Amino acid sequence: VPPDLLFSSIVTTDELLGATGDRAWLQAMLDAEAALARAGASVGAIPDEAANAIAGCCRAERFDPVELGRSARAGGNPVIPLVRALTDLVPMPFRDWVHFGATSQDILDTAAVLIARQGAAITAGYLTALAGSCADLAERHRRTIMIARTLLQPALPITFGLKAAQWLVAVTDSRIELEDAARRLPAQLGGAAGTLAALGDHGQEVAFRFAAELGLPVAVVPWHSNRLPTARFAGALALASGTAAKIADDVALLMQAEVGEAAEPAAPGRGGSSTLPHKRNPVGAAAVGAAARRALALTSVFYTALAGEHERSVSAWPAEWQSLSELIVLSGGAVARAADTLAGLEVDAGAMAVNVQRFGGWLVAERLSLGLAAHLGRAAARDSVTAAGRRAADPTIGALRAALLDDYSVAAAVPPADLETLLDPGGYLGSTDVLIDRALAYFRDPDGFP
Amino acid sequence: VPPDLLFSSIVTTDELLGATGDRAWLQAMLDAEAALARAGASVGAIPDEAANAIAGCCRAERFDPVELGRSARAGGNPVIPLVRALTDLVPMPFRDWVHFGATSQDILDTAAVLIARQGAAITAGYLTALAGSCADLAERHRRTIMIARTLLQPALPITFGLKAAQWLVAVTDSRIELEDAARRLPAQLGGAAGTLAALGDHGQEVAFRFAAELGLPVAVVPWHSNRLPTARFAGALALASGTAAKIADDVALLMQAEVGEAAEPAAPGRGGSSTLPHKRNPVGAAAVGAAARRALALTSVFYTALAGEHERSVSAWPAEWQSLSELIVLSGGAVARAADTLAGLEVDAGAMAVNVQRFGGWLVAERLSLGLAAHLGRAAARDSVTAAGRRAADPTIGALRAALLDDYSVAAAVPPADLETLLDPGGYLGSTDVLIDRALAYFRDPDGFP
Amino acid sequence: VPPDLLFSSIVTTDELLGATGDRAWLQAMLDAEAALARAGASVGAIPDEAANAIAGCCRAERFDPVELGRSARAGGNPVIPLVRALTDLVPMPFRDWVHFGATSQDILDTAAVLIARQGAAITAGYLTALAGSCADLAERHRRTIMIARTLLQPALPITFGLKAAQWLVAVTDSRIELEDAARRLPAQLGGAAGTLAALGDHGQEVAFRFAAELGLPVAVVPWHSNRLPTARFAGALALASGTAAKIADDVALLMQAEVGEAAEPAAPGRGGSSTLPHKRNPVGAAAVGAAARRALALTSVFYTALAGEHERSVSAWPAEWQSLSELIVLSGGAVARAADTLAGLEVDAGAMAVNVQRFGGWLVAERLSLGLAAHLGRAAARDSVTAAGRRAADPTIGALRAALLDDYSVAAAVPPADLETLLDPGGYLGSTDVLIDRALAYFRDPDGFP
Amino acid sequence: VPPDLLFSSIVTTDELLGATGDRAWLQAMLDAEAALARAGASVGAIPDEAANAIAGCCRAERFDPVELGRSARAGGNPVIPLVRALTDLVPMPFRDWVHFGATSQDILDTAAVLIARQGAAITAGYLTALAGSCADLAERHRRTIMIARTLLQPALPITFGLKAAQWLVAVTDSRIELEDAARRLPAQLGGAAGTLAALGDHGQEVAFRFAAELGLPVAVVPWHSNRLPTARFAGALALASGTAAKIADDVALLMQAEVGEAAEPAAPGRGGSSTLPHKRNPVGAAAVGAAARRALALTSVFYTALAGEHERSVSAWPAEWQSLSELIVLSGGAVARAADTLAGLEVDAGAMAVNVQRFGGWLVAERLSLGLAAHLGRAAARDSVTAAGRRAADPTIGALRAALLDDYSVAAAVPPADLETLLDPGGYLGSTDVLIDRALAYFRDPDGFP
Repeated sequence: VPPDLLFSSIVTTDELLGATGDRAWLQAMLDAEAALARAGASVGAIPDEAANAIAGCCRAERFDPVELGRSARAGGNPVIPLVRALTDLVPMPFRDWVHFGATSQDILDTAAVLIARQGAAITAGYLTALAGSCADLAERHRRTIMIARTLLQPALPITFGLKAAQWLVAVTDSRIELEDAARRLPAQLGGAAGTLAALGDHGQEVAFRFAAELGLPVAVVPWHSNRLPTARFAGALALASGTAAKIADDVALLMQAEVGEAAEPAAPGRGGSSTLPHKRNPVGAAAVGAAARRALALTSVFYTALAGEHERSVSAWPAEWQSLSELIVLSGGAVARAADTLAGLEVDAGAMAVNVQRFGGWLVAERLSLGLAAHLGRAAARDSVTAAGRRAADPTIGALRAALLDDYSVAAAVPPADLETLLDPGGYLGSTDVLIDRALAYFRDPDGFP
Repeated sequence: VPPDLLFSSIVTTDELLGATGDRAWLQAMLDAEAALARAGASVGAIPDEAANAIAGCCRAERFDPVELGRSARAGGNPVIPLVRALTDLVPMPFRDWVHFGATSQDILDTAAVLIARQGAAITAGYLTALAGSCADLAERHRRTIMIARTLLQPALPITFGLKAAQWLVAVTDSRIELEDAARRLPAQLGGAAGTLAALGDHGQEVAFRFAAELGLPVAVVPWHSNRLPTARFAGALALASGTAAKIADDVALLMQAEVGEAAEPAAPGRGGSSTLPHKRNPVGAAAVGAAARRALALTSVFYTALAGEHERSVSAWPAEWQSLSELIVLSGGAVARAADTLAGLEVDAGAMAVNVQRFGGWLVAERLSLGLAAHLGRAAARDSVTAAGRRAADPTIGALRAALLDDYSVAAAVPPADLETLLDPGGYLGSTDVLIDRALAYFRDPDGFP
Repeated sequence: VPPDLLFSSIVTTDELLGATGDRAWLQAMLDAEAALARAGASVGAIPDEAANAIAGCCRAERFDPVELGRSARAGGNPVIPLVRALTDLVPMPFRDWVHFGATSQDILDTAAVLIARQGAAITAGYLTALAGSCADLAERHRRTIMIARTLLQPALPITFGLKAAQWLVAVTDSRIELEDAARRLPAQLGGAAGTLAALGDHGQEVAFRFAAELGLPVAVVPWHSNRLPTARFAGALALASGTAAKIADDVALLMQAEVGEAAEPAAPGRGGSSTLPHKRNPVGAAAVGAAARRALALTSVFYTALAGEHERSVSAWPAEWQSLSELIVLSGGAVARAADTLAGLEVDAGAMAVNVQRFGGWLVAERLSLGLAAHLGRAAARDSVTAAGRRAADPTIGALRAALLDDYSVAAAVPPADLETLLDPGGYLGSTDVLIDRALAYFRDPDGFP
Repeated sequence: VPPDLLFSSIVTTDELLGATGDRAWLQAMLDAEAALARAGASVGAIPDEAANAIAGCCRAERFDPVELGRSARAGGNPVIPLVRALTDLVPMPFRDWVHFGATSQDILDTAAVLIARQGAAITAGYLTALAGSCADLAERHRRTIMIARTLLQPALPITFGLKAAQWLVAVTDSRIELEDAARRLPAQLGGAAGTLAALGDHGQEVAFRFAAELGLPVAVVPWHSNRLPTARFAGALALASGTAAKIADDVALLMQAEVGEAAEPAAPGRGGSSTLPHKRNPVGAAAVGAAARRALALTSVFYTALAGEHERSVSAWPAEWQSLSELIVLSGGAVARAADTLAGLEVDAGAMAVNVQRFGGWLVAERLSLGLAAHLGRAAARDSVTAAGRRAADPTIGALRAALLDDYSVAAAVPPADLETLLDPGGYLGSTDVLIDRALAYFRDPDGFP
């Protein structure tokens, strides 16, 4: 009885649970066994009929994962009982060729790679959807002025489009990284000690055919004791989940009632609490964050697994198996829920504008210092702005204007229209437009990006 | 479809999977709801009939965890749909009193505490079994001389009993720590913001009755935003799994063919590999280590959850839920498999003795330096031993004896019987016996220990 | 050349850097050597004159840490060259008694315990200061009404005093935990393999005297291969730093310009940015968070060190040394900066009141549902409130009042004074007062707490 | 007073400490300021004379890191006091142009990138040295037969050259990964909110020139809130340190007295213990492992920093600064000590051969099953081998031969010469030779590798 049906739907998708579940692993292991048989046959190491017979039995629905799981305990991995069960299914004359030339790790690692690539493909799809939403927001809100916040304090004006463009670049980076790490996961075939000894002179040829059957790259040498491929893949999933968490955290912060600049999509029952049904909670952001926190914790399993004993580690490698499923389920889940959240994000441009006015005095201070310098000299300009900032009744633009006009040197030297220009947050966006364009171009064609 | 039936049996027990599974969580949440109703009734906050009706419906088998799980997605936690479903079961006149005065976190945290205590009780049982095996080995092998190894090199003679006594103390410490951390997990009841406001003047009284109903301590104040209790509990599980891993790693190292001093129990199919059926693999140790590695990785989820936003965090708290189940399953599983491994451990005292002879020259060097000083003076004694160590053909005791006797100053000054005494590893065990006694005394009565 | 003078002042204190620096370690190791000599003399294992001579040389200023550091490389730990250097200082006739009966780990572990206890004492002092500030805020703001925020959304009214009381309990818990973990760190004396063999029959007696000399407890058995004491200590530091981070994060969130309910103390240059000098940044909170993040990451070094090989691990134990210093520096630093931040915290009760009014419609919804039930029945009351909440122009109390009065059933059935009472957030604080009292009582006398 | 002179030499190199120390950071920040001034001048944003004057002052030796460190506390980062100090050095008329257009994060992130690239270059050098040693061992021991060990048990014969070739591929992978991650670290220039607003229309142009001045790539958009570049870099360092730890662990295991197949280089004082001077300890492996353990723990700081608030995080970003230095120091240190260890590794081919004979009965079992099938049929062959394995007095080849010859069916059917061939571990190396060639080819030209 597994522990997580009650909670899993919150943090992930059925698609990911399916792609990493028992049946998926079972089929992946069987795909590896079938490919092994075919590869062996292609070089004459085993009879064609045996290969066909074996491959024909390699269908997950013919096996019972629960029973295999129980039997896995004695030997420490599920390939041992699986090979036994598969052998039992195969007609007698061909049984000797089942699993021929391979060791459990060959099958489990290759299955893990198949699972990982499938999980990566699904997650890359979610990342693409998430990037699409970011790109859409970047375009639509290219000129929606808002507060840029550093250390959670108002800094300068930006546009929401630029914030979305920032997300977009991170999401695109994550997708590229994940696809790259997935693409570099090689097939595993080395036999009991990485020498392919049971295959005699056919070793390398079988290894190439085996990989080709499965559409996987061939490693330079078997990687049973070199866990860089899986550690790098785990790192890429961590990047994806961290990126999803970044976006979710920003959304939750923007959703604060006191900020009110964005809201997760409203849907029946969505985001309600059991006692305050009218309140909109950042439940999507919460799910993303929860999944990402757990995913990041699991990442360390793969990095510490790099240091395994000799030709096969005692416990470092077995720690990878379920961790891989969970890491995919949680990282992919974080991305999926972020995509879902962003797809329906309600952006309140009016609230953004109100907040900009409310703290506009701070937002334009830097610009005023620079702009007044033309009229007053740099030092005097900076002093005037600092002094006005201190005198202003509040951080609004209006209060700053009033305080500046109280300063005789400013009132005398700066034409009113110039002052208004300098006080306009919308006029101090710097390279915002160019940067949004760059982000969109990168999203549309990362390779073509200079 | 959950991802782990194929692999879970390897690293944990059915008992732990059951105690942390959906049905267990469901019942724990329902136990909290029932206790809440009874506590409310006991102070007159809700009618007795309502409490009885509600409590009567709080049986897990009347709910569908899969459906609840799906419904949990919208609101972000399973209590929302559970309260809805429970309300539907309760007769109409009493429905308003379901979940009265509580918030989702009250129910989920209290359920988590019930799950945690149950998981801790099971794990403490495994720790007791493990300690029992350690104590048995400490007694039985009190005088079984073996090599003490530091940095994986022979250092001095110890006995296997002392090694087991060392394990015993660590296991006993871990059990005490775990039981203490579990005992201090309090009931959670604070209402939507920790003020118990919905319960009017009855708040504190209901909180006390609620805890009493469940046999749990009352927190100083509600701990919805103070996650020390769960973080401390996670830390205690980490100690338990780390201790299990320590023992398992030692066993795997002793099992090395070149060392051959211990072996995991032989059983049909146990520890075999798919290609080398005659080899005894440390499959128990592997399972312990794999479980412990994953458990330690998950621990960080709880420590980072200490810093959650305001009165209820966005994502730190939801990250705890499944992590708790997994941490229990994996830590407890590590201990269970360690207990199982140690219970049947085959100790080869003969092999230990052979290895002691083989590297005995190194093992007695310190003692020789000290012992020869009485005859030669300290400096000359040390020089003689060092020189003999360098001249000796190999690290055996025999070679060292021969080299020493080649040294005229030694041969002349040291009576042969004295030299033999100094060359006997069994005579250089220091406080071994006393330390074994202390460990056993601590195991038998930790509180009485001075 | 160490890497961190530029950055360390931001995240920690000179006191902690001093207590964990080279000189402190050197003196701690020398204290262990001196205690060893005295303990040996007290049982007659070494001459009194030797003990006096050795102890007289055990002063850190007589050694060069840089040179010892360089020499430590060859043997892998600094005790080897330190014993050599100490021996060179001791008059010739007594040199043989330097380090008598001990191994490097005895000295390093005992020194680590002395460093840890000193670091814990300093950190406990900071925790006490932090708790004092929390207690003061809890008293002073016992009735300062503010918004309770769950998932960063307004939930119910609380007082700032209750928030501070929540912090207070966590800080008090952390201090108790840390002092307990520090108190349980035992002296280490086992000799090369934990048998105290070099001390002959005196082993246990010397171990007791050694510990007594240093004011440390005696372990059940030497703990060279049982790292629970250090792992538990690391866990306690993690709790302290997580608690500090919790408070700091709350402060940073309250400081948001849009919330504006609290501010870190203003001081010359404090919290300014290089381009926006007028802005108040949460620099204290940032330092706390940065230190805590790094501390939590380091914690895992100690948990993974539980599983070390045999009688002394190859790399798990050496990984503890600098990690311990850093963990103390960072955890203690997090607490120190949190204490500093809270000591001068500017609380804006007026802003809290304004925010309460602004989102008061949400804050009183639960209470209205309960309170109107007396007049309308429970179902109708809830419907009226939900409907009014939806009709209300904004989340203010005023808008909710207007919307409720538009509802004929409410207007007809509820006396205006009753409605005003129900609409007052200050009237819905539940057990707030009692809980603050409980927190203060716990702070003042944790042991006396029922 | 920093805490680590006593211990740092053990785990790292002076070169890395220098490249990440205060002076290096100071110079890197000053290089960023100088490049900023020159970039501004190149587009006419600031006067050429100002740029020259500023750049002329950007020399680390003109600043006091300790004083800057103390001053950094108030504002939370060292750039604020550095800009102040730099401004004081610059002649009055040019002071306004110091730090023009930049924010603290621009300077700190760019400095971090310069530090990271320098650290990566040094570490890549160590990786190249390590790879060189691996390649040399792979060539030299191409035919040195040894036991392949899986789960620490003898599995099949391999050669030590193949083991070294396995290491070689992992090291080469790590170096490529690290250089790639370093190469992709971009310059940071965005101004206070990532819009380059202070630079007016020149923003993008200045950003390009700034990067070009420093030889760094330009990011798609400023990456102040997208921490993928640093997280990916941290991940690459984790891969490098994990790979170093893998090699070191293997060495420590081979060095076990009972195995005795390799030894760390002997040097005066090297690997001795304070009480057993004659013993060779794996001190290099210990240092590598200790450094790697700490490095891996720190990695999580960077992954969790991905989720920072809005345009600049409160504490996630500041947690990166010292962590970066430490991660470089420790990862690079792990690689350096691994390189050092492997460079002088003493390989005992004779001991390997003895161990192969000792457990040869197990090593050739698989081959015998396959080889006897030609004579007996597959099932009978397997049964004969299994039975002989059980009957054999010990795991030696001799005992297996004797047991097989006791089996009438074998003795009758298999010509003695054939049996000898099948019993020769050296004849069952499969693709070992080809795999070593592949590893060497990959090392020599990774890009050219198919």
